[in-house]
Amino acid sequence: MHTILIIGAGKSTSSLIRYLSEKSKTEKLHLIVADKSLAIAKKMIEGFSSTEALELDIFNAEERQKAIQDASIVISMLPARFHIEVAKDCLAFGKNMVTASYVSKEMQALDEEVKAKGLSFMNEIGVDPGIDHMSAMKVIDEIKEQGGKILMFESFTGGLVAPESDDNLWNYKFTWNPRNVVVAGQGGAAEFIQEGQYKYIPYQRLFRRTEFLEVPGYGKFEGLANRNSLAYRSVYGLENIPTIYRGTLRRIGFSRAWNVFVQLGMTDDTYHLQNTENMSYREFVNSFLPYSPYDSVELKLRHAVKIDQDDLIWDKLLELDLFNPNKKIGLHKATPAQALQKILEDKWTLQPNDKDMIVMYHKFGYEMDGEKKQIDSTMVSIGENQKYTAMAKTVGIPVGIACVKILNKQITMPGVLRPIHKEIYEPVLNELEEYNIIFNEQEKEYKGYNPDQLN
Amino acid sequence: MHTILIIGAGKSTSSLIRYLSEKSKTEKLHLIVADKSLAIAKKMIEGFSSTEALELDIFNAEERQKAIQDASIVISMLPARFHIEVAKDCLAFGKNMVTASYVSKEMQALDEEVKAKGLSFMNEIGVDPGIDHMSAMKVIDEIKEQGGKILMFESFTGGLVAPESDDNLWNYKFTWNPRNVVVAGQGGAAEFIQEGQYKYIPYQRLFRRTEFLEVPGYGKFEGLANRNSLAYRSVYGLENIPTIYRGTLRRIGFSRAWNVFVQLGMTDDTYHLQNTENMSYREFVNSFLPYSPYDSVELKLRHAVKIDQDDLIWDKLLELDLFNPNKKIGLHKATPAQALQKILEDKWTLQPNDKDMIVMYHKFGYEMDGEKKQIDSTMVSIGENQKYTAMAKTVGIPVGIACVKILNKQITMPGVLRPIHKEIYEPVLNELEEYNIIFNEQEKEYKGYNPDQLN
Repeated sequence: MHTILIIGAGKSTSSLIRYLSEKSKTEKLHLIVADKSLAIAKKMIEGFSSTEALELDIFNAEERQKAIQDASIVISMLPARFHIEVAKDCLAFGKNMVTASYVSKEMQALDEEVKAKGLSFMNEIGVDPGIDHMSAMKVIDEIKEQGGKILMFESFTGGLVAPESDDNLWNYKFTWNPRNVVVAGQGGAAEFIQEGQYKYIPYQRLFRRTEFLEVPGYGKFEGLANRNSLAYRSVYGLENIPTIYRGTLRRIGFSRAWNVFVQLGMTDDTYHLQNTENMSYREFVNSFLPYSPYDSVELKLRHAVKIDQDDLIWDKLLELDLFNPNKKIGLHKATPAQALQKILEDKWTLQPNDKDMIVMYHKFGYEMDGEKKQIDSTMVSIGENQKYTAMAKTVGIPVGIACVKILNKQITMPGVLRPIHKEIYEPVLNELEEYNIIFNEQEKEYKGYNPDQLN
Repeated sequence: MHTILIIGAGKSTSSLIRYLSEKSKTEKLHLIVADKSLAIAKKMIEGFSSTEALELDIFNAEERQKAIQDASIVISMLPARFHIEVAKDCLAFGKNMVTASYVSKEMQALDEEVKAKGLSFMNEIGVDPGIDHMSAMKVIDEIKEQGGKILMFESFTGGLVAPESDDNLWNYKFTWNPRNVVVAGQGGAAEFIQEGQYKYIPYQRLFRRTEFLEVPGYGKFEGLANRNSLAYRSVYGLENIPTIYRGTLRRIGFSRAWNVFVQLGMTDDTYHLQNTENMSYREFVNSFLPYSPYDSVELKLRHAVKIDQDDLIWDKLLELDLFNPNKKIGLHKATPAQALQKILEDKWTLQPNDKDMIVMYHKFGYEMDGEKKQIDSTMVSIGENQKYTAMAKTVGIPVGIACVKILNKQITMPGVLRPIHKEIYEPVLNELEEYNIIFNEQEKEYKGYNPDQLN
């Protein structure tokens, strides 16, 4: 009997717990779901066999170490910054560990000790990072094995609303932390390389530098650059690749309209507005526009960001009730970003019957036998409902698979790991197909940025 | 005989040293100019009587305290962050002190002790802050004394090139630290209040939200908002004023063109570009534009920031040689802001015979006897040459005046001070007129933002 300790019982653990409970008979698993709130842990295991809820304050070292000592393996679903304490205990007590978060410097620093003890600390095995790594490395390794040279790698992921629940003009609802959506793209220029030329997009241009993509059966999307594309060159073993670009997907038109908020300064999270408790939505908008005793807030906004009479952006803004003089922000000392989030949450919150959708799109350009080729690989996952979202599924199931495969020794690689190695991604991707997380790979005409090598 | 210790012999001390040397006979002054570099200190006192150069490492507490103990009064012309160590010694040894810098929290914290010892620590008595405070408080106090109520205060200062040396399309040259010019406006939204409404301008809109001003005899200027207008309400005793706005002056058209750099991301100082050592000016520009194997950098830039065929902005960019493929940035690991500064310094450096110019513009709107009125107060100061700049003059002379007036007990107010009190600003402003730093006050028709109180 293996005891799995899951620390943190947030919303994203629903599919993970269901997966592991379903595997509990065949794999001989006992599941302990620990959370600061016993009520939340109990709620999450409701109806599942071989599960147990535990009240655990992770800042109480004694409690935490006791729970980890009793476990066969530990899954940390805590916010990323808290993994390191769990990791140190796992190292001390010789336990394997799984997280869906980026490898932090502190985590990476444990690598040698983890290896020395023959332990596996698997990280970045959710959706993004996670499924993106695995599905990309599979194609990259295949191309390399066949003697191909990778010329271009582009990868986009989006957490969106499913077509059947897509009922607003923005074609968007919050499917994860709304705050992260509002401040997305801030904190530094997006940096990438195209045909050997380094390119930089500042925040104030980001939402106007999108490119369009089509996913068979799901229509068109737009991709906007992530900040950190270049780091993936070393992670994926693509050191001298001339084009690498990672991005985020939205439905067409979202970014052009979002840019209105960016330009006006409504997404700024670095200072506090005056009097936000009693500020109306209309006053919020007006505070970013020049004073005028005559002109309407509406016309001042149209003029400031140059929205023509017949531009659908306008209807998107109206749909948010942005000019309402009666609705209040109602937050004490809010930043512009917090006030905007409040306005958006009125309209963009996932309703009980709404389904979300994860979309992933990779493009691989390569040269083989003197010929330039391209493979596009796409994946779409639709959520079941508000609890079993596509987000929870695409994060939880690969975490669960990795956990079981480490327990039953199908994965034995030691160290602080990412799922970029064939011995990890191959079995995980295979099992993901059983859960309908399937990549559709298509050969395409090579569409690099400079197919004729001009200039 | 009074011994004046000036710590720091940077370029901005030229007029200060000349002023004090000229006063040395009548006021019985002996001047010690201390600097880390004895050569620089010696150079600055060349040709002046009653002066002495001293090598002083301000981080050597013993040296520093010795020098301060020997002085009658201390003028700190160091970078602002170093004043506090000097101030603590002045407090310990019972010496008065003068600086041209903003009162830091640490400095303010000394206020009670400074008062208890009957000392005067005079700060913010350069040009901005300094002359702006004094000239504004004079008018504000006069209006209040006559029973008027201040409705509006706007204040603009610019360090520019004098008309006789104004020979580029930007009508601008660097007259102070170029780095501060390149990153100006960053670090938070500009915040002010107009007709009782709080307004916020984010960096990405700042250079498109200017307003025009005309200075009699000097033509038109544009003003762009400073970050910190609201803080002046308490400093100037204007707590409930409906309109307060502080800004920076440029010649008309500068900001619209500068906005091209802002929008493209060229003023960002938060990350390092790749390969800037060998990057050409043209490559620098291209790194902020989409990749294309066909199109020119010129057309991509015109398209990206929507510069029409017949827009003079284009000539401004050409004048900077921005598209030159042969000129190199030549800096190791430069930020975009550092690379841009390099390009600008080629063209905007003050030449030996160039003169600079300080321009100040205050608007005071007020109500008296039921009538709304306005006073506009302007000052222009032109530099003599590259050494005796208007900047050095408008910083150095008020510092020198304050120093002498503290020594001869015309100013006796104790505490950590700003020159916002009549007993300070009145004698200083009077003497400044002898140096042709004169404010031209004109009554105008009241031009508040909402003269008819509409809405």
